[in-house]
Order: sequence, then structure tokens, then C-alpha cells
Amino acid sequence: MNKIEMSEEIILAKKELALSWEEIASLVGISPVFLTSACFGMNSLKEEVADKLCAVLNLPSIVSTALQAFPNKTWDFTVPQDPVVYRLYEVVGVYGETIKELVGEKFGDGIMSAIDFSMEIDKEENPAGDRVVITMNGKFLPYKAW
Amino acid sequence: MNKIEMSEEIILAKKELALSWEEIASLVGISPVFLTSACFGMNSLKEEVADKLCAVLNLPSIVSTALQAFPNKTWDFTVPQDPVVYRLYEVVGVYGETIKELVGEKFGDGIMSAIDFSMEIDKEENPAGDRVVITMNGKFLPYKAW
Amino acid sequence: MNKIEMSEEIILAKKELALSWEEIASLVGISPVFLTSACFGMNSLKEEVADKLCAVLNLPSIVSTALQAFPNKTWDFTVPQDPVVYRLYEVVGVYGETIKELVGEKFGDGIMSAIDFSMEIDKEENPAGDRVVITMNGKFLPYKAW
Amino acid sequence: MNKIEMSEEIILAKKELALSWEEIASLVGISPVFLTSACFGMNSLKEEVADKLCAVLNLPSIVSTALQAFPNKTWDFTVPQDPVVYRLYEVVGVYGETIKELVGEKFGDGIMSAIDFSMEIDKEENPAGDRVVITMNGKFLPYKAW
Amino acid sequence: MNKIEMSEEIILAKKELALSWEEIASLVGISPVFLTSACFGMNSLKEEVADKLCAVLNLPSIVSTALQAFPNKTWDFTVPQDPVVYRLYEVVGVYGETIKELVGEKFGDGIMSAIDFSMEIDKEENPAGDRVVITMNGKFLPYKAW
Amino acid sequence: MNKIEMSEEIILAKKELALSWEEIASLVGISPVFLTSACFGMNSLKEEVADKLCAVLNLPSIVSTALQAFPNKTWDFTVPQDPVVYRLYEVVGVYGETIKELVGEKFGDGIMSAIDFSMEIDKEENPAGDRVVITMNGKFLPYKAW
Amino acid sequence: MNKIEMSEEIILAKKELALSWEEIASLVGISPVFLTSACFGMNSLKEEVADKLCAVLNLPSIVSTALQAFPNKTWDFTVPQDPVVYRLYEVVGVYGETIKELVGEKFGDGIMSAIDFSMEIDKEENPAGDRVVITMNGKFLPYKAW
Amino acid sequence: MNKIEMSEEIILAKKELALSWEEIASLVGISPVFLTSACFGMNSLKEEVADKLCAVLNLPSIVSTALQAFPNKTWDFTVPQDPVVYRLYEVVGVYGETIKELVGEKFGDGIMSAIDFSMEIDKEENPAGDRVVITMNGKFLPYKAW
Amino acid sequence: MNKIEMSEEIILAKKELALSWEEIASLVGISPVFLTSACFGMNSLKEEVADKLCAVLNLPSIVSTALQAFPNKTWDFTVPQDPVVYRLYEVVGVYGETIKELVGEKFGDGIMSAIDFSMEIDKEENPAGDRVVITMNGKFLPYKAW
Amino acid sequence: MNKIEMSEEIILAKKELALSWEEIASLVGISPVFLTSACFGMNSLKEEVADKLCAVLNLPSIVSTALQAFPNKTWDFTVPQDPVVYRLYEVVGVYGETIKELVGEKFGDGIMSAIDFSMEIDKEENPAGDRVVITMNGKFLPYKAW
Repeated sequence: MNKIEMSEEIILAKKELALSWEEIASLVGISPVFLTSACFGMNSLKEEVADKLCAVLNLPSIVSTALQAFPNKTWDFTVPQDPVVYRLYEVVGVYGETIKELVGEKFGDGIMSAIDFSMEIDKEENPAGDRVVITMNGKFLPYKAW
Repeated sequence: MNKIEMSEEIILAKKELALSWEEIASLVGISPVFLTSACFGMNSLKEEVADKLCAVLNLPSIVSTALQAFPNKTWDFTVPQDPVVYRLYEVVGVYGETIKELVGEKFGDGIMSAIDFSMEIDKEENPAGDRVVITMNGKFLPYKAW
Repeated sequence: MNKIEMSEEIILAKKELALSWEEIASLVGISPVFLTSACFGMNSLKEEVADKLCAVLNLPSIVSTALQAFPNKTWDFTVPQDPVVYRLYEVVGVYGETIKELVGEKFGDGIMSAIDFSMEIDKEENPAGDRVVITMNGKFLPYKAW
Repeated sequence: MNKIEMSEEIILAKKELALSWEEIASLVGISPVFLTSACFGMNSLKEEVADKLCAVLNLPSIVSTALQAFPNKTWDFTVPQDPVVYRLYEVVGVYGETIKELVGEKFGDGIMSAIDFSMEIDKEENPAGDRVVITMNGKFLPYKAW
Repeated sequence: MNKIEMSEEIILAKKELALSWEEIASLVGISPVFLTSACFGMNSLKEEVADKLCAVLNLPSIVSTALQAFPNKTWDFTVPQDPVVYRLYEVVGVYGETIKELVGEKFGDGIMSAIDFSMEIDKEENPAGDRVVITMNGKFLPYKAW
Repeated sequence: MNKIEMSEEIILAKKELALSWEEIASLVGISPVFLTSACFGMNSLKEEVADKLCAVLNLPSIVSTALQAFPNKTWDFTVPQDPVVYRLYEVVGVYGETIKELVGEKFGDGIMSAIDFSMEIDKEENPAGDRVVITMNGKFLPYKAW
Repeated sequence: MNKIEMSEEIILAKKELALSWEEIASLVGISPVFLTSACFGMNSLKEEVADKLCAVLNLPSIVSTALQAFPNKTWDFTVPQDPVVYRLYEVVGVYGETIKELVGEKFGDGIMSAIDFSMEIDKEENPAGDRVVITMNGKFLPYKAW
Repeated sequence: MNKIEMSEEIILAKKELALSWEEIASLVGISPVFLTSACFGMNSLKEEVADKLCAVLNLPSIVSTALQAFPNKTWDFTVPQDPVVYRLYEVVGVYGETIKELVGEKFGDGIMSAIDFSMEIDKEENPAGDRVVITMNGKFLPYKAW
Repeated sequence: MNKIEMSEEIILAKKELALSWEEIASLVGISPVFLTSACFGMNSLKEEVADKLCAVLNLPSIVSTALQAFPNKTWDFTVPQDPVVYRLYEVVGVYGETIKELVGEKFGDGIMSAIDFSMEIDKEENPAGDRVVITMNGKFLPYKAW
Repeated sequence: MNKIEMSEEIILAKKELALSWEEIASLVGISPVFLTSACFGMNSLKEEVADKLCAVLNLPSIVSTALQAFPNKTWDFTVPQDPVVYRLYEVVGVYGETIKELVGEKFGDGIMSAIDFSMEIDKEENPAGDRVVITMNGKFLPYKAW
């Protein structure tokens, strides 16, 4: 079973049980972002977490095996097209230089890791219209000198 | 004076006064991210904010005028190359579908605005290595039906 | 049923009933542009609208479910090729800077939303040759300062 | 004097006279969109219109000559980057197939001309936020059979 | 039946009847270039022409319906690869500026339409080697001022 | 003197003498398309033709030398942007396969040369709007078998 | 039978008969490069040659028909990736300007034809390591003046 | 002195002395292709060869130093545009797979080196039109197994 | 059996036998990097090595034949996307000029071969976090002068 | 002084002192690869190291300041062109999947850091031709689960 078939199985089971990703994440005990990305084949799960997810969704162990496989991370478009994703690409374009400058000022010469990294997505209620809050948290990695 | 010349003037003045972007932002009374992006020519400032910034940096009013001009936002590479910026591009590639899914689940069909939008960059101290925390906050915009 | 299969079902039903998109839109009570884009999988419909459309076209509820799903919006060519679509791309290229300038002059620094957005396509009869009139209507979104 | 130098002269004169594009257009007696696009070097003006514009802005006849020259229309990015222009590109991507379908349904097999074409940009006041209204008007050109 | 299946049916029938495109065009009473492009799915035929073509080739009415459908015009490579087509692309690259200049000199600011357009391909016999003569004929469209 | 400087000199002289490309071509005794392309640096002229052109335009022999130099033929955009040139690119995209098929039918397996090649641009007067007629004439080159 | 199926049939028959391309070419009486390129679908064969090839390989006449069809020449990557092919691409990049200069010096303004063209691949034995010798032979085509 | 300035100096001196590349190569005692590519900045010369070339052309030692510098080899277009160079690119596209197959058959799994490589360009006189003969000679490099 | 089917067979057999690539490589007696690349279809194996691998994995001789076939080396993305591979691409971008400079300083004008080449991947244990050590070893190839 | 001017100053001083990068690195006490990359503007140096380098090369403190600035890392071509750098790009393409697989097998799901990273370039003397040995050493970063 490859990652694509795995995703289809999980999405089917999720629909049958009428669970949201947040509910599944809560039942499994991990973050909704990480859970969803793993179910979409962009992250791997540890064995016990994968097994628990399969138990929650009544899925066979072959799905758990596929969830534990190390993913090959690729995406469809160099410049993303769907508006939700494009807006984030635009933010990286518009604020990239600013982020680099302020990370340098606060931390020194280095980067925010995208590997030792976590992300949360929250809803901020607001009478003028609710707001999406995305929090990225990555380890600062200083450039090694040698 | 165009935005590029404006940036050069500001960076020169900042170096002479030995101020950080955070210190300037604090003196002007706006967010460091917004201030830096405006000084890099990617956002415009209101007149009073632009004037205050020029006062803080001892810069002439021509710089204030350039800061108030509406910018043309462009960037150099379709796929960014500097590692700080690339890692964010990678995050958009790896987590784009996940973010779309969870925004849909929490808010309905729509997007996080990149215009009615703010961002903060913080340092989270951690004995295993400090962490960069980027918080994006954008208004949810539901797709209009008509 | 995914959006592609949904489109095929709808187009088949439309042909059998010999209805135009305008007639279907009128029977459902929504705009032809919005209806067509939803049937092509580029917008989602609310449940009652989707159900009404399926009633009009004698389609099963599985099509209604597919119409309500949040679409992933993508297109085939970075530069469109079919002449109808290319001419619009060319208009964006030729008049983009002009539109930006005049929106700035009339509204301030900000954009026309493509989300809180509607569009109409009309025929203007003209003895020298009929004319296509496309009207785009999007909320002005001022850039947030913070 | 080439089109780029011409634009710089015009923008300078416009600033000195503190006129908006709409005011200049009104004084010259042509549409603001067409006037602005000609001043940005994307359209040519007839001799009497170019002369009138130079009279309004106190510019020498060399600018009028440059305004009358037939422009070479090019743009900087295959996929536009500034958010104002990108949103229009996105609209073409999302609604291109829909527009093609509805133009075909209303007019037959053919296109909307981008040459025998005009555009207006209006502000629609709205308590929930003003709206940008862009109206494109192009001659329908049926495909010739031979 | 889509345009691709339609093309395959037509090419099969053409081979069985051992007819050239020129012969078919002559029997149908239209130009070989237009006929061939329609059979390759790049143009639509009027009902009576499509019916006549199907009569000539002994094809069922479903092929006629497909011939009448409005095509979506796309091609495989941004820069064409087959030498026959590349040489034309090269001609456009090498002579594009020249053509623009001479069209402007003869007609004023405007373009040659690719929609109100016809093309013929002829053989010019020559003892030093026969020559291909391609004649393009498109309506001049002056840029509209408004 | 390189080809770019050469072009500038020629265009200046042409403006001062108020001659059209067609008039210059007639005075020099060659085709307007070939003359214009050589003046734009896309073809070379034989010595006597180059000298004659310089005599007609009162230009020094250094311009004649530049006209005789073998050009490096390049163009700015993989997909042309100016509408005059784009429409020709579109014609190559839409009719490329058709041209290949009909050249094959008339001549056998081979191509139309873009080197042993000439082109004329004519105006066809027409009460419904004048028409641009472009005639390309290239030697048929059969593929060599060996 | 299209060119891809044709190639598969030929490669299968070649393996069963344990013949090299050079041996087949020798039996058919044509050059190995031309034979191989025709079997890979990049050139067409005359009827008698195609029939002879099918006789040598015990293949049915449908393969001969496919070998005679005029090919559509395309390739997979704008920049080739396999090292054998990339090295040739690199040679064109590194020596392209040199080749143009020396062809100009020896022959005048014109090109080496890729149509009236042949190629041989030989092995030059060498104690320091055998060498690949590729000989390209193309007719010089002078640019036509008109 | 960088490679671009070096090339300009050499071309100027060559024109003043009215020498061809072949004559210079003969005086220096190296191959015309290698000499020309070094003068265009795509190869480096050994000290004694560079000195001899400068003696032949009456150029100062700074040119010799530039000729000895190791070049950075780059080219302008991913797909070359000038017809002389494009035809070679096309040959690589059309015959790439064939060359790979025949090199494999003659030599085993490996490549023709583009580094331990030489090239000659010759003129083959022919009553039907002279022919360009390009001979590439590169060491066969077998893939290492380890 | 093509290389893709071959890879699938090998991966299946490897899973059933619960062997790592390192263990298989040790049993076959070749390097893990070379073995894995051959099993992924990017290198060919000598007959005896391929047979031994099939013996170790209980695979039929058809797999050995596929392992011996000369591969066509291609990859999916011009800029790799998976983070493991992208980081190496980034290293080539960041350090490419440095590597060229130091290879030139140590060896003269030439390159490191990617054909007469081997690679090892090792784990360096480290209390601050284990380290990946990649060692590339390629023959220096000096540019030939001729 | 920006990084480009800094590089030029350093290279000039290096030439005047006739020092190799290895000698400079040895005098400064850091690795040649890291030193060279910093002098080419792709890494920053700590203050004391930058000062020492300037002392070695007799350069003013403004160069030291530029060496300490955090670089913006970019490169010229998506696919590198110079053969030294292209061969490394090719290695990443050919062996990328293999490296990912073996890193996963040895370390688990994660990457080799390009930030906490060092590189050495060595010469391995060999009677069959000296060999370039590149050793990359990067911290393994396991994907964080959250």
C-alpha cells in the first residue's frame, strides 16, 4: 500500500465515522497539523501512534505500515495555484527578506529549521471577521564555521 | 527617490545610530516586522508613522515621502534560494494541503488573507537550542457566492 | 465522486435536457458565472443550492455532495493557450500596472479581492459587431498596518 | 525620447501639478484607464490627444511625439507577483474555462478582442467595505471559416 | 465523443478511403488548411459542413457533433520541437519585430487578427528545389482608444 | 559599432529623412521585410547593398560594416508578449500540426527552410476592414536518408 | 500501430535474433545511426528499406507501414538529463559560439542543415582509453537575401 | 582583465591584422576550434600558447594572463536561439537516444567525455552545395562500479 | 521487464527477507550506495554481480537481465523538492563556485568526473547528534587542449 | 562595501601576495572550503577570523566588516552550467533517491543538515589519474513529531 492509497483509505474511514481531523487528533493524542500531514503522506508516524490512529478509524494494519513509511515529499506546482496556498507563497515572497533580517538580528547568522519544526492553526474569533492564526515553531540552526 | 534608494538611506542611518530594527520599531511604536518590510520597500507607511521614523533616524522628508508611496511587490526567484527563505517555501510546499484542509474544517470554504494580515517573529529560549516562532494572523475571507 | 466525475455527470445531464448554463442558473436562482464555475469544479455550492441544481438536472445526491466539497483550484498552463483565455491574460499583462495605479488612486494602498468577488458576462448588441462585457466586482482590501 | 523616459517626465509633471490620473483624463477628455496606460507606455495616443495632454501637463512636444509612438507591450513576470495584479491573474486561472464556456454559449465560437477593447475601473461604495468594479468591453470576434 | 477520439475516427476513415486532405477538402468544398485543423480538433465546423464531411468519409453523426463542438486550443510545448513547427517559431522570433514595424507603417497601431484569419499552403515548383508557400491573411484590428 | 548601435543610427537617419522602410527598400532595391530585418540586426547585407543603404541614409561606412556583420539572432521572450507577435506565435501553436501534415502530404517527409526563405507583408484593401497578408516562401528540404 | 508500439516490436525482435544495430544496419544496407533513429521513431524509412528491415527481423508489414510514417520529433527534457546526452548538450553550449564563428568564416552567413544531414559514430581504439568519434555532416545553407 | 574584455581585445587585434581564426591557429600551432573557444573565453590556454598568441596579435601580457585563467563556462539560453546553434541542439534532441544506444552497443555502459574532448570543423566541397563536417572526438568513460 | 518493474520486485523481496540495503550489499560484496542505485535503476550491474544479487534475494533471472541493462538516467524535478535531496542541491548552489576554485587550485583546469566516480555514506556518532558523512570520489579529468 | 566588492578586493590582494586559498586558510587557521566560500560571499566570518584574514592580506577593516555581514545566498542558474558544478548537480539527480534511502536506513526519518555542515576537498594521488575527494559532513536532523 503506497501513501496515496493510504490517504484514500483514511479519508474514507474519516467520512464514515463523521470525525473531523481535530477530533481524530484529539483521540490519537497528537497535533491536528501533524496528524493531517501524516494522513496526506507528508510525514511518517511512529509505530504506536500509527497503530492508535488505525484503531480509532477501524483500519487494518497495512494502513499503519504505510503511515510509518518515510515519505517522499513533493508538490504539484513550483508556484502554488489554489488561493489558500498561494497566499502563503506570497507571504514568503513579500516578507522573506524581512524574516531573514529579523532572524539574523535576534539569533545571529542561521536559519529556522523546517525539520525540527512544528505548526499550529488556530481560529481567533473577531467581531470584524474571524482570523486564521498560523504559528510556526522551528529550532534556530546557526551556520557552522569550520 | 525610489524605494531602493530609500532602503539604502535607511540602512545607512540605522548603522550610524547603531540601532536594531526592534529598537527603531519600539521608538516608532509599530511592529518590527511591519517596520522592516516597509523599510525594505514591501509596505507603505502612513504619513505620521513615516515622519516619526525619519525623525528617529534623522532622515529628510524625501525619505518619508518614499516610505508613504504604494510599493510594487516583487521578488527575485520563483523558488527562493537563500536557506532562510527556502525553508519557508518548503513549509508551504509540504504543509500547503494540510493548511487548506484545516482552514476549511475550522472556517468553511475560504482563505487566510495576506492583505488584512500581520506577522510576528519571536525567540523562544530553549536549553536544547533556541527556537524561532513565526506567528501569522490573517482575516478569514469566505468565498462569496452570487 | 470527485469534481471531475461530477462535471462529466452535469454536462451529460445538461445535454440531455438541452438546457443552457443561463437557463440552469435561472432555474436554480444563482448567477450563470458562479453556477458554471461550480459545475466545472472551481467553486463550492451551499447544500440547498447544490440540491436544487441536482433536482433541476435529475441528478442523484452524490452529485450534490461533490458540488458542496471545497475545491482545489488549479489550471493547466502558467501562460494560458486557448485564445479566449489568453486574451484575458494579455489584458492583465498590458493593463496590470494601470489597474494597480488607479485602484491606489481611488482607494488607497490595497487590492481588489478575488475571494469576496463576483463576475458577470453580458452581451452588448452593436451594429458594428456585438461586444462581450465582463464585469468584475471585488471588495477593496486595504493593507493592514500593525 | 523613449517610452520609459516619457513616463518619468509625465509622472514628475503630474506630481508637481498635484493632479490625479482621473483629473488629467477629465481635462484631456479621455478615459482614465486609457490615459494611464498610454502614460505608462502601453498604448499610443493620437496626435491631438497627445498634444492636449502635454498642454495640460506643460510638457514639451518631444513628450507628445513619444506618446504617439506605437508601443512594444511587454511585462516583467510570466506569473505576476504584486498582489493587485496577481489577483487578476488568479481570476483568469479560476474563471477562464467558465468565461470561455459562457462566451461560446452567448456568442458562438470566437473570442473577446483585447484590441478593440476598453476598460473602466469604478468604486462601488458599500457599508461593508467599498468594492472595486472593473468592466471590460471587447468586440466579439467569431472564428473565420474558409 | 471528444475531439481526440473524433480525430482518430477521421484519420482511420481517411486511410481506408485512401483520400488526401486536399481531396477531402475539395469534396467538402472548404480549404484544406481549415479542414485539417478542424479534423485535428483545433477548429469547429458548421453543422452542414460537418455533416458533409461525415458523408464523404462514411462516418456516423456522432463525429459530426464532435466536429461542431467549440475546441479548447492547446499545444504541447512552449517552444515547439518538431523541425517543421520549430522553423515557424524561429521565423516568428527572427522576424517578429520586423513584422510589427511594417504592419505599423502600413496600417497604423494595431495587429493582424489570428481569429478573423485564414491560411493557405501551396507548392511552388522550382528547378532548384520546390518551395513551400504559406500565405496568412488576417484582418487588421486597430487598437481602440477610449 | 555593434548591431544595436547600428540600428539606432539607422532609425535616427530614417526619421530625419522622413522615409518609410518601404521607401528606403525601394531606393535600395531590396524587399522591405529583408531590409527592415537587416536594419534591426537580424540579417546581414552584402557589401554593395549595405553601401547603397548608407548612401541613401547619409550614413558613414562604419554602419555599412556593421550591416555586413553576421548577426547573432536572439529574442527576448520564449513566449512573445506584444500582441502583434503573440498572434503569430498562437498561429504556430494552433496550426503547427496542420502545416506539418499538409507539407508532408504535398512534399513528402521534410521541412520548409527558414534559411532559404523570404517573406512579404502586404495590405489587402477590404470594405469590411483591410487585411494583413503575410506570405512566407521557403525551400522544401527533404530529410536525407543515409 | 504507432511509432512507440513499432519500436517495442523491433526491439523485441532484435533481442530474439540477438542482432546488434550495426548488424541489422549492415543486413539492410543503411547507416547504423539512421537505422537506429528510424527504429526509435525519429526518422521515416522508404518503403523498400522498411520492407527489407521487416524481412531481416521477421516482422509483419504493419511494422513496415509504421516505419514509413512521417515522425513527430519530440524529446523529454528541455535540458537533457542522461549523462550521455547531457554531455552533447554541454558541447553545444560551450562550443556553440565557436562553431557559429568558424562556419561563418569558412562558408559565409548561413547554417549547417539538420535536415540534409547525416551522422556516423565510430570507435577509435587508443591505449589510453578508446575514444568515441561522432561525425556530423550537414549541407551548408546560406541565408537567402531578397 | 576579465574574459569579456580579453575577447574584445583579441577580436579588435584580429580585425586590424585582417587574420582569420584559421590563420591565427596555424601561426600559433593549435586547432582553430580550440583557439577560437579560448579567445571567446570558454577554454584556458597554457602559458606558452597564450604568450605565442599574444605575440602573433601584438597584444600585451595582460591578455595572455586572461587567456590562462580557468574559465567559468556559461551560456545565455537554455534552448539556444541562433539558427546555427539551435540546429545542433535539435540534433542532440532528435539523435540523443540513438547516440546513447550505439555508444552502449560499441563501448558498454558509459559516456563520451566532453572534457577529454576535441572537435574539428571542416568544409566538404560538393557540387550540390558544400557541406559542414563537424567531428567530435571524446574519450569513452565507462561507469565505475564499486 | 523494465527498470521500474525490476525495482518493485527487488523492494518486495527485500521486505520479505527483512534485509537492509547494507546487508544485501555485504552479501553481494559491493558498496551499499552502488547497490541501491542499481536497484533503483540508476546504474547497471555486471552479469555475475546481478546474478549474485538475484540469488541473495531469490529472484528469477529476468530481474538479473534488467539489472544488467544500461539505464536511462532521469529525475523528476529540475529543482528537487524532498528535503533530503534539496539540501544537497542547496550545497551545490552555495558551494559550487568554491569547489570549482579549489579543484582548479589543487588540480588545474578540469573537473571531477561523475562517471569514474564512487560515493560512500557513513554515520559519525556524536554526543551532540549523529552526523551524516557523504564521501564523493571522482577522477580528476583535465581539459584537453588540441 | 557589499559582498561583491569585498570579493574583488580579496582576490586582488591574494594575487598580489601570490597566495593560494589553502595557504591563506592555513595562515588564518580555518578550513580552505569555509574560507573560500566566505571570501566569495556565501558565508560570514566571526570578527576575530575576519580581522585575521584582513591582516594576512593587508586589507582595511571595511573588508573585515563586509566579511562579517550575513550573506544572502543566491546562484545564477537553476541548472548549473559550468561542467565542474554541473557534475555535482548530476550526482544529486542520479543518487538523490539512493542517498535518501540509505540515510533513512541508517538514521531514521530525517535529513542531513546543510547548515550544521562542513566540507573538505582533497586530492587522492593515483597512478591511473589523481582523484578529487569531496567529504560532506552534516548533522542528522530527525523530523520532529508533535
